[in-house]
Amino acid sequence: MKADLRGAGVRDLGGDGPPRAGDRASLRRTNLGLVLRLLRDAGPRPRTQIAADTGLPKATITNLVAELVELGLVREGDAARDGGVGRPSRTLELDGRTVCGIGLEISADYLGLIALDLGGEVVAEHRAALDVRAEGADAVLDRAAATIRTVRRTLKARGTRLVAITVAAPGVIQRDSGVVSYAPNIDWRDVDVLGGLRARLGRICPPLQLENDAKLGAIAEYLVASAADIQDLIYVTGETGVGGGIISDGRLLRGSAGFAGEIGHMRLQPDGERCACGRRGCFETLVGLNALLDHAAAPDDPVRDATVDLEERLAELKRRADAGDPATRAALDTITEDLGLGLAALADILNPRAIVLGGYFAFFGEYLVDRVQLELSARVMAPDAGGCTVLASTLGFSAAARGGASLSLDHVYRDPAGVLSAAGR
Amino acid sequence: MKADLRGAGVRDLGGDGPPRAGDRASLRRTNLGLVLRLLRDAGPRPRTQIAADTGLPKATITNLVAELVELGLVREGDAARDGGVGRPSRTLELDGRTVCGIGLEISADYLGLIALDLGGEVVAEHRAALDVRAEGADAVLDRAAATIRTVRRTLKARGTRLVAITVAAPGVIQRDSGVVSYAPNIDWRDVDVLGGLRARLGRICPPLQLENDAKLGAIAEYLVASAADIQDLIYVTGETGVGGGIISDGRLLRGSAGFAGEIGHMRLQPDGERCACGRRGCFETLVGLNALLDHAAAPDDPVRDATVDLEERLAELKRRADAGDPATRAALDTITEDLGLGLAALADILNPRAIVLGGYFAFFGEYLVDRVQLELSARVMAPDAGGCTVLASTLGFSAAARGGASLSLDHVYRDPAGVLSAAGR
Repeated sequence: MKADLRGAGVRDLGGDGPPRAGDRASLRRTNLGLVLRLLRDAGPRPRTQIAADTGLPKATITNLVAELVELGLVREGDAARDGGVGRPSRTLELDGRTVCGIGLEISADYLGLIALDLGGEVVAEHRAALDVRAEGADAVLDRAAATIRTVRRTLKARGTRLVAITVAAPGVIQRDSGVVSYAPNIDWRDVDVLGGLRARLGRICPPLQLENDAKLGAIAEYLVASAADIQDLIYVTGETGVGGGIISDGRLLRGSAGFAGEIGHMRLQPDGERCACGRRGCFETLVGLNALLDHAAAPDDPVRDATVDLEERLAELKRRADAGDPATRAALDTITEDLGLGLAALADILNPRAIVLGGYFAFFGEYLVDRVQLELSARVMAPDAGGCTVLASTLGFSAAARGGASLSLDHVYRDPAGVLSAAGR
Repeated sequence: MKADLRGAGVRDLGGDGPPRAGDRASLRRTNLGLVLRLLRDAGPRPRTQIAADTGLPKATITNLVAELVELGLVREGDAARDGGVGRPSRTLELDGRTVCGIGLEISADYLGLIALDLGGEVVAEHRAALDVRAEGADAVLDRAAATIRTVRRTLKARGTRLVAITVAAPGVIQRDSGVVSYAPNIDWRDVDVLGGLRARLGRICPPLQLENDAKLGAIAEYLVASAADIQDLIYVTGETGVGGGIISDGRLLRGSAGFAGEIGHMRLQPDGERCACGRRGCFETLVGLNALLDHAAAPDDPVRDATVDLEERLAELKRRADAGDPATRAALDTITEDLGLGLAALADILNPRAIVLGGYFAFFGEYLVDRVQLELSARVMAPDAGGCTVLASTLGFSAAARGGASLSLDHVYRDPAGVLSAAGR
């Protein structure tokens, strides 16, 4: 019987394995993934240990490992010092420096791309300010396709195989069809993102998938937090919109149709400001980027110029806060209180071990984190905020693209042979 | 390798299996549970099919089945008509009419008990009106212990083995210690429920566990809904308090410390009514039983007399609504709107396939369900309320006790030999 690897810290990012079938070839593909995930999550180990951990026969493991080595995903390391008698067995460890996955983020304010190799190292990165709402979908997809072409050439030149691209987009998305159904902050409705990219990239198009940006951010944060054995977290990202991604017991919570995590539209004020979604008093109207800018800056203040890179504008606001500018400080006070209110509702409902603040919230982490933690302690029903710790993301605005790249690589862990044969060995 | 039984509809109620150990005895106990769950979820089948479904050798299955038959959990049924050649093999099916689990609910308004056998049939049921806040914890635990003693005698007389009792309580509970930490609606703080029951029951005390009432209600509703392949649901119960239980992808969502589901204290109105928790404008102040009563009845109206059985009082209110009484109808209109507001937030966050209304909400299902569904369609960000259907519970006020009994029986499915040896074969 298969060992329950969850106890060994195996991560489940919610991707799909090889097609289900009862035949031997399918079982072999599944087992290749099993061995690869074991080496990722439990670390380097000799063949005998892999056999013990998976419950598979030693001879099967020998064959599986040989195939993984041939695929360039595993390599032999040092001889194991297990104190046993006989010939010392060599440990096996992840390789995969020649395999990468891409995450491409379409944000309201920028276009970002990250390529990660199987070891999690960044092999390409790109970000450009872009007023997505003003440019319109066609122009944005043109830019995205051009960026992918450039990065693809770089990867090809260094012999790296690209297995998949995961596109991160805000709002309500349809994973099956690759369509952004409704993203009020960029004013997109029923935009066929994956179809549009495929048409632009043509024959060279790698496998594409679409996922909500905050869900991908949550995956990226979980890969960081799980090192501290945090299995329940909520990633809350403050950009023009406010998105949420929920990891529950080590799994991404998608909901029945993939729409879970729309936390920006909890109504927190019955007669509050009008939201981009048409309703009033949504969480997003209270703590979204525009709320901060409205509180902190006059309409003609250059920090509100959407053609300037968002991080530059936030850096300017941060300088003002550090210098004690009353308007900026008061804006952050208001954001703190409203953030505490919304996050307390989430903590009551989901009882996360951590809430990770991303986007602009992380930028102002030193002003927000400790005070939001106090708000939670005061507002959450369970004692001591239910054990929930507020953290600032350390991934900056790259979280969604990074999570997308990880999800792209997840295919390799689930079906190494199938994915790499498609990517061209 | 083990077949992935989730595809066959195997339910995971979140209980614990036998103690983890790598030895053969522990593996055998795990496999007994595996076979038993397969028969429950995938239906009667011959030994050869069980071997194929579990991936275990035929000889192992023969031994495991023999032990399950001896334990009284499985019986031989009809000969299988599988069209194969040779001796026809007999199908095996669940038995378990002589094994039962108990759920005992401590509600603000009553004490309820249900005993279910392994086939899910009710073998004992009990409910009594009780003003738990007024009586105080000691008197309530006296009553609970007396009820358990009576039911235990009945079960013993008919030869039924009791495997465990799960106690359902409102508010924030500590599963590990068996303590109700904070239940504002019954004014309990740090009440050692399991310790109190053990002291009263003494030597005859069966294994006890404590769980939040709404979580157990969600388990009971999931066992109904999963027949329609609903794997994501939220159970929302309207009593004095408003509780929530979340099933996500077929699993009970407990959160990192077991406190998930505290939906009654989302702040929906900044300057609303004072809540029992000390804050203002909580969801519970808008749609809890007292909100309905406040809207619908004068302070001296007999429907507000907590010493009268809750169902009688609700039946009277229902008669008034059916007769077109303006105050009752207006009260239900207000409840409808506020319920829609809170449930829309939950649907945005969790994207459930179904929201099941329990407690008094179910009692007024014909007034609430369709209109709350409309509110959701208008308020939820995802199109068509994200595919979420509003349903009235068909389990009435017994949902928590029923879910508790199911969770008690879950131990049998996880470790049949261990549990029944403890219960006395």
